[in-house]
Amino acid sequence: MIIIDGMADRELKAYKDKSKKTPLEIANIPNLDQMAKEGLCGLLDSLGIGKRAGSDTAILSILGYDPYDVYTGRGPLEVAGTKIKFKEDDICLRCNYATVNDDFVLLDRTAGHISEGTEYLEKTLNEIDLGVEFKLKNSAGYRCVLLLRDDDLSPSVEDATTEEGKKIEEIKPLDDDRGSIKTAKVLNEFIKKSYEILKDHPVNSKRKEEGKMPANIILPRGAGVIPRLENFYEKYGLRGAVVSGIGLVKGMGHLAGMDIIDVPEATGHIDSDFMAKGKAALDALKTHDFVLLHIEGTDEVSHDKNVKEKIMVLERVDEMIGYISRHVEDTLVTILADHTTSTDLGDHTADPAPIVLWNGDFITDKVREFTEREMYRGGLHRIRGMDVIPVILDQINKSKKFGS
Amino acid sequence: MIIIDGMADRELKAYKDKSKKTPLEIANIPNLDQMAKEGLCGLLDSLGIGKRAGSDTAILSILGYDPYDVYTGRGPLEVAGTKIKFKEDDICLRCNYATVNDDFVLLDRTAGHISEGTEYLEKTLNEIDLGVEFKLKNSAGYRCVLLLRDDDLSPSVEDATTEEGKKIEEIKPLDDDRGSIKTAKVLNEFIKKSYEILKDHPVNSKRKEEGKMPANIILPRGAGVIPRLENFYEKYGLRGAVVSGIGLVKGMGHLAGMDIIDVPEATGHIDSDFMAKGKAALDALKTHDFVLLHIEGTDEVSHDKNVKEKIMVLERVDEMIGYISRHVEDTLVTILADHTTSTDLGDHTADPAPIVLWNGDFITDKVREFTEREMYRGGLHRIRGMDVIPVILDQINKSKKFGS
Repeated sequence: MIIIDGMADRELKAYKDKSKKTPLEIANIPNLDQMAKEGLCGLLDSLGIGKRAGSDTAILSILGYDPYDVYTGRGPLEVAGTKIKFKEDDICLRCNYATVNDDFVLLDRTAGHISEGTEYLEKTLNEIDLGVEFKLKNSAGYRCVLLLRDDDLSPSVEDATTEEGKKIEEIKPLDDDRGSIKTAKVLNEFIKKSYEILKDHPVNSKRKEEGKMPANIILPRGAGVIPRLENFYEKYGLRGAVVSGIGLVKGMGHLAGMDIIDVPEATGHIDSDFMAKGKAALDALKTHDFVLLHIEGTDEVSHDKNVKEKIMVLERVDEMIGYISRHVEDTLVTILADHTTSTDLGDHTADPAPIVLWNGDFITDKVREFTEREMYRGGLHRIRGMDVIPVILDQINKSKKFGS
Repeated sequence: MIIIDGMADRELKAYKDKSKKTPLEIANIPNLDQMAKEGLCGLLDSLGIGKRAGSDTAILSILGYDPYDVYTGRGPLEVAGTKIKFKEDDICLRCNYATVNDDFVLLDRTAGHISEGTEYLEKTLNEIDLGVEFKLKNSAGYRCVLLLRDDDLSPSVEDATTEEGKKIEEIKPLDDDRGSIKTAKVLNEFIKKSYEILKDHPVNSKRKEEGKMPANIILPRGAGVIPRLENFYEKYGLRGAVVSGIGLVKGMGHLAGMDIIDVPEATGHIDSDFMAKGKAALDALKTHDFVLLHIEGTDEVSHDKNVKEKIMVLERVDEMIGYISRHVEDTLVTILADHTTSTDLGDHTADPAPIVLWNGDFITDKVREFTEREMYRGGLHRIRGMDVIPVILDQINKSKKFGS
């Protein structure tokens, strides 16, 4: 299963009055097109029609875990994706290394997509005196996680904003609970102290000299406790592995008891070595029944509203997928986007996303290209996230019969 | 949102062996065709596949109120659509002014689509001595409502028949409850007394002289208590308005806290001034985020099994919709039928009905005409009533994200 995060899009404004095209329609993606042509295609509404999904809730549903039952926030999934040790009641948050000015106005939610030196920042941040036990750990790129441990904490707190141009306001508790109030207070102190300790940090002095955005603040969000996911193998009888550059997807895989394949070249951004990931996924197939290969770069550049890079990433992903298609034999390949991310809006939308099954035992349809528009006439029609694994299990003749 | 009630149809028997056409396929509707061509099309099953819906349950679901949770009968919605004052426990019914012969056989369920003089009939009817507090109030055309108020009444009673050619039988209670027995008795007395007091009423003498059907009986049905609907603005953040000629739709809007725009030219029948309604809807858009424009005439003529008039009404509606399409700018227009009404059968069927989104941010499909058949290949595929508002909210970028 290859999830190309936020790959789907709307008709781009720049092309709106002329050719009305989406990035998938513009990009040169011969391998994806060929697989759509040979495959069984359709539209995917991860959470259901008209429901706007995050990557976390979308991918949970695609793996068959109903997010309306199991989702406790993104923080815990990100925490589970690091090698940090967590306990059941820990408050888990995901954080951004980000850039603010002296007035705490957010300039860059990714600190210029920082990719070096964060190990030193992590060390410094863990020296903060916060009054409660905590641990900050880097995930990938500008992402890190924060874990708070104390008797009376609660995850019912707001997120720090990640909207560029906005001032970083104090995080408020979401209810009157003593634990929520205390947690908000602790987080606000952590944000403030992160700025104090990072603003003149040598890593940032160097970044500024190089004309890069300094990583001078930590913005925590998605607070929650660790969710319980049924073991993937017990659920489906499939030994599963995950290849991903981001903690979120590794975390889900880890919580579901899947093996996490670390690929050093996977960055969770467009500088990621997709081919290395593709090869790692092919390798993992030798020892696993199910491999989830997740590509994050497509979503990142869509959030950045960068059409040009989205097209470029799609073309690079297509090369990797071509390589996979030439190197699998008896493997059903499912390619899908977890959700649509509009590059014009810089955010997810609820538009249905493409899904293609390839190299399987299905009846092919008339779809000729891997685009949102062509998927309208796919033989799968319009399915939900929770439908995906059942369809796959049936294709590989592993689905259970109800009745006789 | 333009709801064209019962617009969808089946292949007409008269065309069955030749061209196999539906009224939408016969009618000359260039504006609807153009919008289908430019829009995102699909099929709508208001209550779900194979579920035959009333207009009340269908439109509730289209507005996002699950009728399986909130529906208490049509009567209360019609009552809410008049300016009558109601209390929580009142038994609400909708009624027809109708025509029976001396043997109580129903000749015309609409009293010849009576449109004049009902204010005098209403006054007379309210003078009936019934033993319980009641109020009869005219709605539009042949429609009126009846409200019963007493300590021990119940809505569990049968409807009076509105099937022409049938004898008006006594309404029976639906259970052994003392309140149901009493309510049935009160209603039967009301029906009987309505005939006695109306049969020689001057308004009817005049109608008979003019060769028109007399409105000589009141037929109550759809008993229920007022349902609670979540406020539309609180639910969606949209200031809503309703333009409709019939009490049912006004009632839903009123209960949902939407503004009711009264258009004197709107009759709820085919003599309605659609263009006046269209202009009122355009006006309402200046002060509201969401305007529901409801056209009843299409359903009326379908129940009357009048193919010729259905085609004529569709063509008149099309002109109005063309006017709207030329006068909106940044407004997403959704056009749909709440359900199919077969003109051959004279009743609703569960066949899915057309839905088109136009002037939005979607990826267009290959539909070329506004017909039931063309909608089969629409990009929306097949959605439910409860999906409509979520899809609209996402199109206008107002949907909430679940997850991140």
